[in-house]
Amino acid sequence: MRHRYIVKKKHDSIWGLIKGAHDAWSGWLCVLLVGLFTGVAAGIIDIGASWMTDLKFGICPQAFWLNKEQCCWSYNETTFDGGNCSQWWTWPEVFSQSKDGAGPYMISYMFYIAWALLFASLSASLVRMFAPYACGSGIPEIKTILSGFIIRGYLGKWTLIIKSVGLILSVSAGLNLGKEGPMVHIACCIGNIFSYLFPKYGRNEAKKREILSAAAAAGVSVAFGAPIGGVLFSLEEVSYYFPLKTLWRSFFCALIAAFILRSINPFGNEHSVLFYVEYNKPWIFFELIPFVMLGIIGGVIATLFIKANLFWCRYRKTSKLGQYPVTEVLIVTVATAVIGYPNPYTRMSTSQLIYLLFRQCGVSNADILCDYNRNFTAVKSAIEVAAAGPGVYKAIWLLVLALILKLVMTIFTFGMKVPCGLFIPSLCLGAIMGRIVGIGMEQLAYNYPHIWIFSEACSTGVDCITPGLYAMVGAAAVLGGVTRMTVSLVVIMFELTGGVRYIVPLMAAAMASKWVGDALGKQGIYDAHIGLNGYPFLDSKDEFQHTTLAADVMQPKRNEALHVLTQDSMTVEDVENLLKETEHNGFPVIVSKESQYLVGFVLRRDLNLAIANAKRMTEEITGQSLVLFTNGNNIQNHSPPPLKLKKILDMAPITITDQTPMETVVDMFRKLGLRQTLVTHNGRLLGVITKKDVLRHVKQLDNEDPNSVLFN
Amino acid sequence: MRHRYIVKKKHDSIWGLIKGAHDAWSGWLCVLLVGLFTGVAAGIIDIGASWMTDLKFGICPQAFWLNKEQCCWSYNETTFDGGNCSQWWTWPEVFSQSKDGAGPYMISYMFYIAWALLFASLSASLVRMFAPYACGSGIPEIKTILSGFIIRGYLGKWTLIIKSVGLILSVSAGLNLGKEGPMVHIACCIGNIFSYLFPKYGRNEAKKREILSAAAAAGVSVAFGAPIGGVLFSLEEVSYYFPLKTLWRSFFCALIAAFILRSINPFGNEHSVLFYVEYNKPWIFFELIPFVMLGIIGGVIATLFIKANLFWCRYRKTSKLGQYPVTEVLIVTVATAVIGYPNPYTRMSTSQLIYLLFRQCGVSNADILCDYNRNFTAVKSAIEVAAAGPGVYKAIWLLVLALILKLVMTIFTFGMKVPCGLFIPSLCLGAIMGRIVGIGMEQLAYNYPHIWIFSEACSTGVDCITPGLYAMVGAAAVLGGVTRMTVSLVVIMFELTGGVRYIVPLMAAAMASKWVGDALGKQGIYDAHIGLNGYPFLDSKDEFQHTTLAADVMQPKRNEALHVLTQDSMTVEDVENLLKETEHNGFPVIVSKESQYLVGFVLRRDLNLAIANAKRMTEEITGQSLVLFTNGNNIQNHSPPPLKLKKILDMAPITITDQTPMETVVDMFRKLGLRQTLVTHNGRLLGVITKKDVLRHVKQLDNEDPNSVLFN
Repeated sequence: MRHRYIVKKKHDSIWGLIKGAHDAWSGWLCVLLVGLFTGVAAGIIDIGASWMTDLKFGICPQAFWLNKEQCCWSYNETTFDGGNCSQWWTWPEVFSQSKDGAGPYMISYMFYIAWALLFASLSASLVRMFAPYACGSGIPEIKTILSGFIIRGYLGKWTLIIKSVGLILSVSAGLNLGKEGPMVHIACCIGNIFSYLFPKYGRNEAKKREILSAAAAAGVSVAFGAPIGGVLFSLEEVSYYFPLKTLWRSFFCALIAAFILRSINPFGNEHSVLFYVEYNKPWIFFELIPFVMLGIIGGVIATLFIKANLFWCRYRKTSKLGQYPVTEVLIVTVATAVIGYPNPYTRMSTSQLIYLLFRQCGVSNADILCDYNRNFTAVKSAIEVAAAGPGVYKAIWLLVLALILKLVMTIFTFGMKVPCGLFIPSLCLGAIMGRIVGIGMEQLAYNYPHIWIFSEACSTGVDCITPGLYAMVGAAAVLGGVTRMTVSLVVIMFELTGGVRYIVPLMAAAMASKWVGDALGKQGIYDAHIGLNGYPFLDSKDEFQHTTLAADVMQPKRNEALHVLTQDSMTVEDVENLLKETEHNGFPVIVSKESQYLVGFVLRRDLNLAIANAKRMTEEITGQSLVLFTNGNNIQNHSPPPLKLKKILDMAPITITDQTPMETVVDMFRKLGLRQTLVTHNGRLLGVITKKDVLRHVKQLDNEDPNSVLFN
Repeated sequence: MRHRYIVKKKHDSIWGLIKGAHDAWSGWLCVLLVGLFTGVAAGIIDIGASWMTDLKFGICPQAFWLNKEQCCWSYNETTFDGGNCSQWWTWPEVFSQSKDGAGPYMISYMFYIAWALLFASLSASLVRMFAPYACGSGIPEIKTILSGFIIRGYLGKWTLIIKSVGLILSVSAGLNLGKEGPMVHIACCIGNIFSYLFPKYGRNEAKKREILSAAAAAGVSVAFGAPIGGVLFSLEEVSYYFPLKTLWRSFFCALIAAFILRSINPFGNEHSVLFYVEYNKPWIFFELIPFVMLGIIGGVIATLFIKANLFWCRYRKTSKLGQYPVTEVLIVTVATAVIGYPNPYTRMSTSQLIYLLFRQCGVSNADILCDYNRNFTAVKSAIEVAAAGPGVYKAIWLLVLALILKLVMTIFTFGMKVPCGLFIPSLCLGAIMGRIVGIGMEQLAYNYPHIWIFSEACSTGVDCITPGLYAMVGAAAVLGGVTRMTVSLVVIMFELTGGVRYIVPLMAAAMASKWVGDALGKQGIYDAHIGLNGYPFLDSKDEFQHTTLAADVMQPKRNEALHVLTQDSMTVEDVENLLKETEHNGFPVIVSKESQYLVGFVLRRDLNLAIANAKRMTEEITGQSLVLFTNGNNIQNHSPPPLKLKKILDMAPITITDQTPMETVVDMFRKLGLRQTLVTHNGRLLGVITKKDVLRHVKQLDNEDPNSVLFN
């Protein structure tokens, strides 16, 4: 219809031509704008979060708007290396100018907790007061929206603003959460808002979903600086139906967003890659075994996490806890800050920890994780395998503690009423696990260099085992287990780290983790949360494995009456009564009560509007007027004059026969994005199957409660 | 049905359990085998082709089965650097032991041409004699097969063998062709053959296509060592319908294939990346302008190539030329070899040339392309911008000649009756173009270092402009223009080169090239060849932009009769007559001639079989027997006894109404993979729309000849 309209217009005037071109280009223009603004939003969030994270530790007195790194840079101090520079004052320094002793430590500790509490409470209150939809990751909801469900206000401007501010605050509070899920949500809000500028997209839900898919890609693209990974994430995880046209648009949108963010350069460093790894060494064939093992452990940890988190979220929903969201956030924040501060690995931000774990120990690396008995004599000497010093063993213990703390706190954090993503915490859990295994392997190779498995590669003692690579693989394994991504995960990981060589290890770990996860518990975290919230989401990945027929699912059941309209024998009163008595969204129209052949389908909304309009416009329409869905030439001289509604009748409803297997029906619902289909037998109307019926049926067959499905 | 069968079986015995597990795992097992064998096949082809390519230049007398590189390595000569080592004898050395003068040059020249002719003629004859389907790239045909069309024998074992051997020969002959398209075809043959081992896949065409999609991914994966790129290529370019389950399987299959190939290590070098680039420098923001320009030029060259190639292929089809495929191959080979040998850039293999063009000029690079006025004093000095020496200018002229020659020869080569791919030639054209532009930019930056655009980045004169990067971007641009890939192209390029930093430049060039290509000529090379060959391919990318209704497209037209069966009033003779008179693949079944309500749909094949069977089994069925598609209890005592065919009746045909817009119909055909749909009005059967009708209708609306569509 839109095309017909355009073609007509085109012949009218040059204005029409411009309109036609605008129509053709509006898609590209729209994703361009979405990409631009997503990039800008991500830049603001990154700058804000990094400044406020550093604010917990100290301040730059000369220019309070600078974060620690910028503060030290701005005065050209070259001694900045993870430590402090003189321009940056920690809180004890601000107040007492002293750095030693227990007092300053306690002051730092207190300031850390106080700031964290302030940020977290602000975030939670803002969400609670202004935009309840701004909480959580948003990905489950966006998946549901892209599958055709409509949640009013979920992608509105208030959600956008509050989610952005809340995200800065909750990241700065040091909670165990990431910003990718919320970034996807923010990007989708931007996509939704801009789509209203273009009538082609704003007025058509199906078209708007194309823009939202592209926006989701842009969201991941800016969260990780991974444009291709973003497109694949949108394709694999978020989008329900992804036509190829969307692929190109998403690609473009993700590219623009990543480019804008790179131009803003919020972290002030040269690398466009978030956790850039500088090593590029071959891995040994044998190492595949520990990599797959990491995948398996990752899958187990991920399943544990999903089950525990689901249990806790269900508890929150059903108990009184759900009524005190701000209090809950405060308690979790205090716990995270109090337990986390003493351990340096939980004190630093999660991104910094991941970066540290991915790195290789080089000459300049002063962390205790790199306390090896090595001497770097030559400047360009390769990094050889060496015995671990006491610092490494201490670091391992701290890392184990960090792993446990992060795992437990993330379980409680994800699902709280603040904006919170899951990628960075998952990556961090995996990176800790992987680094520990990696150090183990390295020491094994150092102590037994002549076992056959090491003999070839490690004989020279150089470039043999890289613990950082294990951290990378472990991170991929846990994230893969939690989200059940595969291809997009590997692409994101290697865009994130720049490690092109490590595709095979990453793939092996991702596959192993996914298989273990699928074996232990069926759903990824997002699908589990969709199920928990009862969103009407028809999973396009599950195969429908049952042998029921359409006749078993359709409404009404055998002993009930089907609510239908007839094409030329019902009065306005009859129709109005039917509208009052029932709550269906639409009604099939049949020839007559006696001969139930299907004519078409009419929506409740249209019917309501048409009757109201007719009553308003012409006085002659009364309750006794016939409602005609035909051309109605043969009932011309009737009184009162009939109400002709052929215009609002959908003459081409999708129909199936009662013998159609449900497998086919589910397939049609998924691929054609139907909301209902009519069931016929030899042309006679038997009943209706709505999406809700299908979802209930699927739940029933999976032995779950069919009434848990929400529907609007 | 399959599932119902399995569920039943499972309860029987442990054997049933094993069978169930086998059924569940057979998909993974099948793609594992496909990946394994694809890797092995690729290894054999790579080893064979590299040996035979070197055979054109000389031989290793001590061990004739070694290629030049291996020959030199096997005797630990360290002087091997693109030049000759003493163990490797060129042909003049073999015969006259002299290396200088015009004589040896002519001998080399002659040997080169003779070997090329021998290889090419062998390849063409093999294809002509044993497997005509083994010619060409195979990708257009595989796209068509994946869209539901069946070409018998196209993926058979003979095609596999001949295509592999022919590919080795035609690559070795030095023709302007690549091995990726054929590798995809070979992988699909392997996929097809292995799918017969698993009844789940062998007997179900739709399921088999899942395996073929995975195999296509493995084909690209081994051709380029790019597993993720392979999966995306399969998704974006090859596959028609790509469920997410297929994504994971394809991923696995591509991973296994790449891994096997890496283990075989046919090129004997350490890098798993084909054209590994060692530089990793940032690019300047300003450089985006030349990159986009490269994209535009790339799009123009690509369109030129597509149009010229299509014209030539059409000429070949319609003229006498098509009858002499071997002669044609020989003429093209002679032309390529005679013109190509004197120019060193066309003499070397296309892959070597690309590798050379992508590289940066370093200390050890002796090619004239690197004749800069630089002095490398310090060992670790960065590569600075320098004035080009005379060698560079000579190289540019040779490259321009090579560009023209390669463009012209590729136009004639692609479509010949030998296995030939298009990726490597396209990449090469683009790389030459890009390198020339890159050298131009470099000299501009050297001569005017203080223009504002260069001022910031080039002020130190180091790491300013990298001509190799321009070659990379140019290669992506031309390949993108030819195939119209976007995301998969960028992923392949950066898996191919390892250049993670260069995603944005590659993306920009690919988008520009695609837009230019789309503006100048609608189709990519594969779609153009599908159209040329008249395959029935319903493009899933095009939007159907017309407003016709199902009633306009359906058969029969108004004044013709529809061939139908009635459910209980036709005799066997009537049915047999109908079968004889018509050629339809199936017939709708209606209640009776008077009341044309649709009951179901029956396939011609089933009908033929059922009647033949019935006649063979029971003597009583005669021409006068009634054919019943009902349960038929009311006509029990009829004589002769009726033929009950309810079993073969499909009670759940997909139906639409006559008012359905063709946009929806085309959508249903695409997404549900239909072969026909029945058109009804108020339950009454009006007609049938087959896929052929849809294809014809689309062609007609595009003002093309609707009869050019093949159909089986």
